[in-house]
Amino acid sequence: MDWSLKIDEALPRPLRTILRGVGQVFFCCNAVTGFIFLVALYIGGLTAGAAATVGVISSTVAAYLLGFSEDDIDAGLYGFNGTLVGPCLFLFLEHSPQLWLYVVLASILSSIVLAAFMRILAPYKIPASTSPFVLTSWMFLVAVYAFDSFSRGPVLPPPGLPSAVTGAGPVPADMWFTALTKGVAEVMFADSVIVGILFLTGIAIVSLRGALMAACGAIVGVVIPILLGANQNLIEMGLYAFNPVLTMMAVGWVFLKPSGRSAALALLAGILTVVCQAGLANFLAPIGLPTLTFPFVLTMWMFLFAASMSKYWSDPSVK
Amino acid sequence: MDWSLKIDEALPRPLRTILRGVGQVFFCCNAVTGFIFLVALYIGGLTAGAAATVGVISSTVAAYLLGFSEDDIDAGLYGFNGTLVGPCLFLFLEHSPQLWLYVVLASILSSIVLAAFMRILAPYKIPASTSPFVLTSWMFLVAVYAFDSFSRGPVLPPPGLPSAVTGAGPVPADMWFTALTKGVAEVMFADSVIVGILFLTGIAIVSLRGALMAACGAIVGVVIPILLGANQNLIEMGLYAFNPVLTMMAVGWVFLKPSGRSAALALLAGILTVVCQAGLANFLAPIGLPTLTFPFVLTMWMFLFAASMSKYWSDPSVK
Amino acid sequence: MDWSLKIDEALPRPLRTILRGVGQVFFCCNAVTGFIFLVALYIGGLTAGAAATVGVISSTVAAYLLGFSEDDIDAGLYGFNGTLVGPCLFLFLEHSPQLWLYVVLASILSSIVLAAFMRILAPYKIPASTSPFVLTSWMFLVAVYAFDSFSRGPVLPPPGLPSAVTGAGPVPADMWFTALTKGVAEVMFADSVIVGILFLTGIAIVSLRGALMAACGAIVGVVIPILLGANQNLIEMGLYAFNPVLTMMAVGWVFLKPSGRSAALALLAGILTVVCQAGLANFLAPIGLPTLTFPFVLTMWMFLFAASMSKYWSDPSVK
Repeated sequence: MDWSLKIDEALPRPLRTILRGVGQVFFCCNAVTGFIFLVALYIGGLTAGAAATVGVISSTVAAYLLGFSEDDIDAGLYGFNGTLVGPCLFLFLEHSPQLWLYVVLASILSSIVLAAFMRILAPYKIPASTSPFVLTSWMFLVAVYAFDSFSRGPVLPPPGLPSAVTGAGPVPADMWFTALTKGVAEVMFADSVIVGILFLTGIAIVSLRGALMAACGAIVGVVIPILLGANQNLIEMGLYAFNPVLTMMAVGWVFLKPSGRSAALALLAGILTVVCQAGLANFLAPIGLPTLTFPFVLTMWMFLFAASMSKYWSDPSVK
Repeated sequence: MDWSLKIDEALPRPLRTILRGVGQVFFCCNAVTGFIFLVALYIGGLTAGAAATVGVISSTVAAYLLGFSEDDIDAGLYGFNGTLVGPCLFLFLEHSPQLWLYVVLASILSSIVLAAFMRILAPYKIPASTSPFVLTSWMFLVAVYAFDSFSRGPVLPPPGLPSAVTGAGPVPADMWFTALTKGVAEVMFADSVIVGILFLTGIAIVSLRGALMAACGAIVGVVIPILLGANQNLIEMGLYAFNPVLTMMAVGWVFLKPSGRSAALALLAGILTVVCQAGLANFLAPIGLPTLTFPFVLTMWMFLFAASMSKYWSDPSVK
Repeated sequence: MDWSLKIDEALPRPLRTILRGVGQVFFCCNAVTGFIFLVALYIGGLTAGAAATVGVISSTVAAYLLGFSEDDIDAGLYGFNGTLVGPCLFLFLEHSPQLWLYVVLASILSSIVLAAFMRILAPYKIPASTSPFVLTSWMFLVAVYAFDSFSRGPVLPPPGLPSAVTGAGPVPADMWFTALTKGVAEVMFADSVIVGILFLTGIAIVSLRGALMAACGAIVGVVIPILLGANQNLIEMGLYAFNPVLTMMAVGWVFLKPSGRSAALALLAGILTVVCQAGLANFLAPIGLPTLTFPFVLTMWMFLFAASMSKYWSDPSVK
């Protein structure tokens, strides 16, 4: 919206860049939206908020020092992977003082990997999206296990999974609201209804279509797993929803010309993201790694590459 | 042959496109060949034939609705991955009504993945071949296991493996014919001599060199595993042969200028495909996935990329 | 140095090409350096030396017969992967007469994979480096296990790991020299101080900056694992050092314009290589494969791709 763009432009450049970096987690190049996201993260948990702050600053400063494109840095593109790396490491690793050092190192690496993927994907005009966050986090998670001779089970528990897992059954009506909002919140690892509502609000400031796609993605991430008979607790936590949320936003709003056809394609992409997540989770189980947002990245890549071969979207506008 | 081309061209376009899609499993853009393959599939098993039919129609229609290149669709290029996805899911998953839905979904996805890989590989003029079938099938296999909390061993049994596995020993003369023909038949998951003969016949209609390469590939897929001391039952089932069959056809007939030198390169590629298959099978064992035709895809890619760097094949004609 | 270049140019072409191939393991296109490396390899062990000799000859001759670029062959670029494949297979597989056949086959394949990766990476002007050696060796290692029904533990022991593993503790002063020199020697699988000194000498003949980067890489590969609490025996064997040695040479000397900034980037790359190695080792453990030099390859690729996006190194001179 106009007022938010005016605030965005009025901010001092370093602050604006950092806040835009947080906003870009949901494809929003807008400091107001980024500020709402950051507040939501702190509400979700002080440590998660601080880790995201350290991450976004580290990755953005690293990009500046390494001499990457100033336009990209200004748009916050070197911030969102760091924003995700911070809370991710704090969720999956034992808290300790040196963990802050790992967050800084991993955020720096995420900027290097982002530049590398931008270069690799440049001829195809396809975005790297959160792939640097995923690859960097995986690397640090397995590396820390290696060094610490960590004893662990065959698979990391998904974020916040309650110990008692109940069997599948009908989902009560009042669970729906919880599942849908948490599905949006889990994009940044927050198991909270209020965080999800704030995220949706921040997106809606930039684009109603974006917020609509996010909500549809959350619905897909609840309905499809129910139809397929997935674990009900995981569904209620929104753990099947955060990937289709991102996929539907990317395909239905950000990277393809908006149209009814694009919306239909986004819906198909959202459904297949759920299948991809279930497959990838099983694939990664022996190594003990979480899927993070890789199901979204893989599905989005396939659909955007394919769209560039179609007469309907042959010239996708690429962020 | 001329008469088969005439029939091919005389058919109504939708039927021709579908049958060519089946024919493209063995690189044959010819509806007569596709018809023979389809008849063979039904002879091999009614369910496999029906699954292939549903698959080829789903993937072709999806390509049309998604607006992909009509020339490619007409040539059957959006059909062969669906043709393979169908019987594959029916071989490795428990039969149930919703399995038909999975076949349709997976076939649609295979067309999207094919378009994506065509775009990725376009600057190199390298074919995507059956990689979409392999990746889509892997994804659906692990996903279905995930949702169904399927209890399964560390590795899926190869298609049709008899329970009693005999030790290695000299192969009787009459086993050779079985092993060679089944090696061709197993490309479409058929454990049958007659199916293999029909497949070879269909290929020979289009090109004698193609049929010769297929036969040589089958021989490589029997002789090399014997020399390396592989399990004799797997050899007799043709399970080491279907990958080199495809590799030798691709390298020795379809994608490189035909010559004695190309035939020699195809032989080397066939031998290394067997090594690649053994390696990949071991690599995938902990996850419980079959190699499918990925050894063929990987080896073919390496050899075609490498050939484009060689003065002998620097301008490969690409399908 | 001038005298070594004169000797290099005075040698008969086939001998020069083979020796340069050995030299290229450390990015040195110089037959004198290659000769010193080869002598060192034979000092490290007669079998390792012979395997490297068979490997470098096989891969170079294969490249010639396959018609790849004569300039590249002359520069020894088709030799270093074969040089590494030979000793690798002899280290990790049971010695037998047919192992020599595998070395020849794997060396030929390494040349094909190199040409393929050169083609894939050509638009980006990024080197394939030792990726063909790693992929080919992995393939043959898992394939041989598959065929031989080898019984093996969940992970291969790292090269030369002593059976008694002592706990972590302060590293005595006299251990440092051992760890640093062995770190350079382990690039070619040699667990020997004298081999490491000869390798450094050979590099210094071509470039003092190169030797300095190698030494710094070895220091990084000892200091960082100590700080992270890694197994002391592995550190003393130089098994965390050979990857950062190569990374720092590549980033700080060979592929980027030499400067203080490049040296700082190389240091960061070296540190992240250690993290990458720990992560990859854990990742590969269930399959029982060693990391080989893949941590170096991955980190170097990321840093070189990223450097091409930076205003400081936007036109890297590529070997």
